[in-house]
Amino acid sequence: MRKTIQLGPGLQIGGDSFVVMAGPCAVETRELLDQVADAVAAAGAGVLRGGAFKPRTSPKSFQGLGLPGLELLAAASARTGLPVVTEVMDPRDVEMVARHAAILQVGSRNMQNFPLLREVGRQPKPVLLKRGAAATLDELLHAADYIRQEGNEHVMLCERGVRGFDPSTRYLLDLAAVPALRGRTDLPIVVDPSHGTGRRELVAPMAKAALVAGADALLIEVHGAPERALCDGDQALRPADFAVLTAELRRLVALCGRRWSRPETTGRVASVPGPHVPGSLDDEVVAP
Amino acid sequence: MRKTIQLGPGLQIGGDSFVVMAGPCAVETRELLDQVADAVAAAGAGVLRGGAFKPRTSPKSFQGLGLPGLELLAAASARTGLPVVTEVMDPRDVEMVARHAAILQVGSRNMQNFPLLREVGRQPKPVLLKRGAAATLDELLHAADYIRQEGNEHVMLCERGVRGFDPSTRYLLDLAAVPALRGRTDLPIVVDPSHGTGRRELVAPMAKAALVAGADALLIEVHGAPERALCDGDQALRPADFAVLTAELRRLVALCGRRWSRPETTGRVASVPGPHVPGSLDDEVVAP
Amino acid sequence: MRKTIQLGPGLQIGGDSFVVMAGPCAVETRELLDQVADAVAAAGAGVLRGGAFKPRTSPKSFQGLGLPGLELLAAASARTGLPVVTEVMDPRDVEMVARHAAILQVGSRNMQNFPLLREVGRQPKPVLLKRGAAATLDELLHAADYIRQEGNEHVMLCERGVRGFDPSTRYLLDLAAVPALRGRTDLPIVVDPSHGTGRRELVAPMAKAALVAGADALLIEVHGAPERALCDGDQALRPADFAVLTAELRRLVALCGRRWSRPETTGRVASVPGPHVPGSLDDEVVAP
Amino acid sequence: MRKTIQLGPGLQIGGDSFVVMAGPCAVETRELLDQVADAVAAAGAGVLRGGAFKPRTSPKSFQGLGLPGLELLAAASARTGLPVVTEVMDPRDVEMVARHAAILQVGSRNMQNFPLLREVGRQPKPVLLKRGAAATLDELLHAADYIRQEGNEHVMLCERGVRGFDPSTRYLLDLAAVPALRGRTDLPIVVDPSHGTGRRELVAPMAKAALVAGADALLIEVHGAPERALCDGDQALRPADFAVLTAELRRLVALCGRRWSRPETTGRVASVPGPHVPGSLDDEVVAP
Repeated sequence: MRKTIQLGPGLQIGGDSFVVMAGPCAVETRELLDQVADAVAAAGAGVLRGGAFKPRTSPKSFQGLGLPGLELLAAASARTGLPVVTEVMDPRDVEMVARHAAILQVGSRNMQNFPLLREVGRQPKPVLLKRGAAATLDELLHAADYIRQEGNEHVMLCERGVRGFDPSTRYLLDLAAVPALRGRTDLPIVVDPSHGTGRRELVAPMAKAALVAGADALLIEVHGAPERALCDGDQALRPADFAVLTAELRRLVALCGRRWSRPETTGRVASVPGPHVPGSLDDEVVAP
Repeated sequence: MRKTIQLGPGLQIGGDSFVVMAGPCAVETRELLDQVADAVAAAGAGVLRGGAFKPRTSPKSFQGLGLPGLELLAAASARTGLPVVTEVMDPRDVEMVARHAAILQVGSRNMQNFPLLREVGRQPKPVLLKRGAAATLDELLHAADYIRQEGNEHVMLCERGVRGFDPSTRYLLDLAAVPALRGRTDLPIVVDPSHGTGRRELVAPMAKAALVAGADALLIEVHGAPERALCDGDQALRPADFAVLTAELRRLVALCGRRWSRPETTGRVASVPGPHVPGSLDDEVVAP
Repeated sequence: MRKTIQLGPGLQIGGDSFVVMAGPCAVETRELLDQVADAVAAAGAGVLRGGAFKPRTSPKSFQGLGLPGLELLAAASARTGLPVVTEVMDPRDVEMVARHAAILQVGSRNMQNFPLLREVGRQPKPVLLKRGAAATLDELLHAADYIRQEGNEHVMLCERGVRGFDPSTRYLLDLAAVPALRGRTDLPIVVDPSHGTGRRELVAPMAKAALVAGADALLIEVHGAPERALCDGDQALRPADFAVLTAELRRLVALCGRRWSRPETTGRVASVPGPHVPGSLDDEVVAP
Repeated sequence: MRKTIQLGPGLQIGGDSFVVMAGPCAVETRELLDQVADAVAAAGAGVLRGGAFKPRTSPKSFQGLGLPGLELLAAASARTGLPVVTEVMDPRDVEMVARHAAILQVGSRNMQNFPLLREVGRQPKPVLLKRGAAATLDELLHAADYIRQEGNEHVMLCERGVRGFDPSTRYLLDLAAVPALRGRTDLPIVVDPSHGTGRRELVAPMAKAALVAGADALLIEVHGAPERALCDGDQALRPADFAVLTAELRRLVALCGRRWSRPETTGRVASVPGPHVPGSLDDEVVAP
C-alpha cells in the first residue's frame, strides 16, 4: 500500500488519489493571484501553487514578494479553500513559510542544500522535494532521507526535468523516473510539466502522460496573462486551457482507476461568476 | 491533416490510427519467432518487428542471422498477416531487405549515416527512422530530409531515448519530443519504450504515456523467454504481459479518439490455440 | 589586466600568478591533517584545502567534523603558513567559517543557493565558487553576480566537472570552460581535477592540462592514506605523487610565463624531516 | 611500450612522437587547399587533413567535392610531402578513398556504422576513428575492435567532443578521455579541438592542453579565409595563428619529452615564399 499524505477533508496525495496543484509561477499582485486561484479552484485543482521567494538565475530578475507574497497566498487559500504549496529557499525562513503554507517546496537548485533539507525535516508540514537538474534517482532518494531522518516522513518527490542538450525544450522531462521511483519508494510522486518542458504547448500532453505513467500529482503553472508574467510566462497555461486540461485529466483519472482529489470545501467557488468552461467541476463525470 | 502511411487493408500509420509494432529484438530461431509473432498478432499488434542485422556494441556479440533471418521474418509475416519492420544497416543491403520487409528501419546509430539514408530514400518502402542518442529534433528532421530528398516521403520518426546520466535507466526517453515533433512535422511519430528505458517493468507505463502524449505508433520488444534472449532480454515483455498492455492501450486509444489499426486479415490468427489472455482481440471493446 | 586577489605576502591568485590549493577532502584527525598540510606545503602548495562541513549525498555518510574541524584547519594554517580554503554550506555558518578560513568555498551543489551566495557576499573574505554539475557558464557568472552585488568582488570561479554519461569518470571535466570564461570575465579561474575526474590516475594529466589551458589555480585532494579516507579516497593523491606533480607543474608554469605563487613565510616547512622529493621547493627552477 | 603507426620516413604516430594534422574542414578549391597545405606544412604539420565527403546535418548544405576533392588532396600531398587524412562515409567508397589518402577517417556520426568499420578494417591504410558524440569509452574501444577484428591493427582513437548542455561551446571536449584511454589501450590517441569546441579562440588553449594531457596527435582546422568557408568557418584557425600555435606546441613537446614528428621530405616547403612566422621550422628549438 502506497503512502498517502492527508491535507484535510477530501484531499490526500498518494494512494489512489490524483491531485492537481496549480497557480502562478510567482505571486505578483493580489488581483492576479485571486483571479488565477479562483480559476484553478473552479477547474478542480486541489492545491494552489505560487512563489513568494523565487530562485532566479540572475540577481537582477524579479526575486518574489517575500513575506507579503506569503500573506497573499494565505488569503487566496482562505478564499478558495485550497491549501498552498510554496517554495522556501533559506533555512532561516522555514518557520515563517510553514506558518503560511500547507506544503513547503524545496526547489530543484536546493535538492542538495542539506541544511535546508534538515530544517524542513524538523517542522511538521509536508515537503515537496524537486529533483535537481543533474540528480540521479539515487541522489533524489538520499535527499529525501535527509528530511525523513529529522522526523518528517511527509515527503513528495517531484520530477521537473533534467538538463538536456536539445534547445527545443527548456529541460528534458524524465517521465520514466515516475515508474522507476514507484518501484523504489512509497513516497508520492509529483510531476511538473511546466518547468519540465518550458513550453506552454507541451504542458497538456506531458501532464496527461505523467498521470498515465503513474504520477500521484501534477504541478502546473497558470497565469491570467502569461505574456506579461514577471517569471516564466512561456510555460504558463491560460485559465481556459487549464480547464480543458483538467477535464481531459479527469477522464484519464477515471480510466486509470484513480480518484480525483480536492478539498471538500472547495465546491463553493464553483459559483464564482465567470464563463462556463468545459471540465469545470459542475460537469458530470462519467467513467468509461 | 496529418500524413498517413498506408500499409495494406485496415492498416495505416498516422492520422487518427494507432499501431503497435511488436516482436523480438533479434530473430533467433523459427520456433521462437513464430511463437512471438502469433502471440503479438493475437494481442492486436499491427506490425511484426524483428532484427536480422543487429548493430551490436561489441563485434563479439550475436550479430543477427542476416538473410536467413529476413526469410524467417517473411515467413512469419505470411503466417500472421502482419507486415514486418526490420533494420537495415548497410546501403548495399537495402534492396535485399526491401524485398523481405514492409518497413525499413534505420537505427539510432545510423541516424546520420547519410549514404544509408539516401539509399532507403531511393526505394519505395516506408522508412522508420530512429533518433540518435545525442540528436536534437532539428537533426532528426534534417536526417528525414535526406530520405525525402531522394523521393521517399514515407518516413516515420522514432523517439527511442537519448543518452542520460542516470544509470537507473538504459536511455532517457524524451517523451516531450512527441508533442514537440507534432508541432513541427506531419510525419508519423513512433516511440520505442523498450530501448528507451531498457527495463521491462518501465515499458508498459511509458508505452501508455507515449500514446497519451500523441504518438502514432509504438515499437515494443516481446520475447517468449527473455531470460534466454540473445539480445536485450532485460527490456523484452513476455507475451502475456504484452497482451495485458495492449488491452490497456486499447482503452486509452478509445478515450483519445483514435482508432486501433491492424491488418484486416489478421483476425484469423486469433484462433491460434492458446490460453485466453485479457485484451486479446476476442474481447469486446467499448469506448468510454 | 586580469583581476588578482591578494592573500598575504607572496601569495596572490589571478594575474600572472599560479597557485596550487591542496589538502584532504575532509578533515579527519589532527594527525592526518598535519601530515598532509606539511607535505603539501613542502611541495609548494600556496593554499591548504580541507572540509569541515561536508555535503554528502547520503545523510548516513560522514558529514565532517564541523567547528572542531575548522579549528584543526586554523591550527594547520598557523603551523604551515598556508591560508585555508574550506566549504560553507549554511548561511548561518558564514560568520563562523569566515573567522577560521582565508577563503570560503561555495560548493557545486550550492552554486544556486542564493541566500548563501548573498551571505558570503556580505563578509570580506574571498569566495571560491564552484560550478554546478549542470550549470552553464552563464549561470555560473550570474551566481557570481549574487555575491558581487552584496559588495564582495573577490570571487574565484571553479570548474569541477559537469554531469556526463560515461561511468568511466565521476564527472566530465569541462576544461574548455577555462578559456571560455577567460574571454568573458576577469575573475580568477580555478580547476578541481580531483572531483572533476574522480580517479587518482587522471588528476595529474588534467591538472597540467588545466594550467596550460589558462587556469589561475588548482584545487587538489591529497591524503596520506587514500585507501582509508572517510571521503572520496579514490581521487586523492598520495603526498609523494603530489610532489611529483608540483614539480611538473612548476616547469610548465615557467614555460607559460607565469609565476608560482605561495606565501613568503612558508619556506620554513621545507625543513620538515622527510625524504627529498623531486619538485620540492629546494630544487632550483630554471625557466626554459 | 605504446603502439606506433609508421607513415613514412620521419613520420610516426604514437610512442614518443607528437604529430599535428591540419588543413581545411572541406576541400573547396585547388587554390584554397594549396594555400592552406603550404602554410600548415611550413608551420610543421605532419599530416594534411581535408574533407572530400562531408557529413552535413542538412542535405542542403555543401556535401563536399567527392572524387575531385580526393584528387586535389592527393595533389596537395605530392606538393607538400604531407600524407593525407580524409573521411570516408560509405563502405562502397572505401577502396577509392584508400587509393587517394594515407589515413582513412571514420567520423563521429559513423562510429557505430559497423559495415563501414568492417570495410576499413579490410584495407591496409591506418584508420582514424572519431568518438561518437554520445559514446562511452567502452563503446569507442568496441568500435575499434570491429576494425581490428578484420585484420587492421592501425587504428587511432580521436576525442572530438561529446554532446553537452551549454550552448557556449559546440561540443564538450572530454580531455580526461585522453589519460583514461591511455590506461586502457595502446592505440594512439588524437584530439580534435576544432570540432571539440567549435570556437576559434578556444582551439589553441585546448590543443596545448590535449598535448599535456597525453595526446599523441591533434587534428586542427585551418582555413585561409574562415569567414568565407563553406563549412565550419567559426572553428578554423587562420594560417598565421596556426603557426603561432605550432611554435607553442613545439616548446611543450620538448618539455614533455616527446618528439615532433613530420615527414623528412617536408623541409623543402619551408622555402615557399611568404612572411616569416614565429614557430616555423626554420626557428631553432631549444628544449628547456
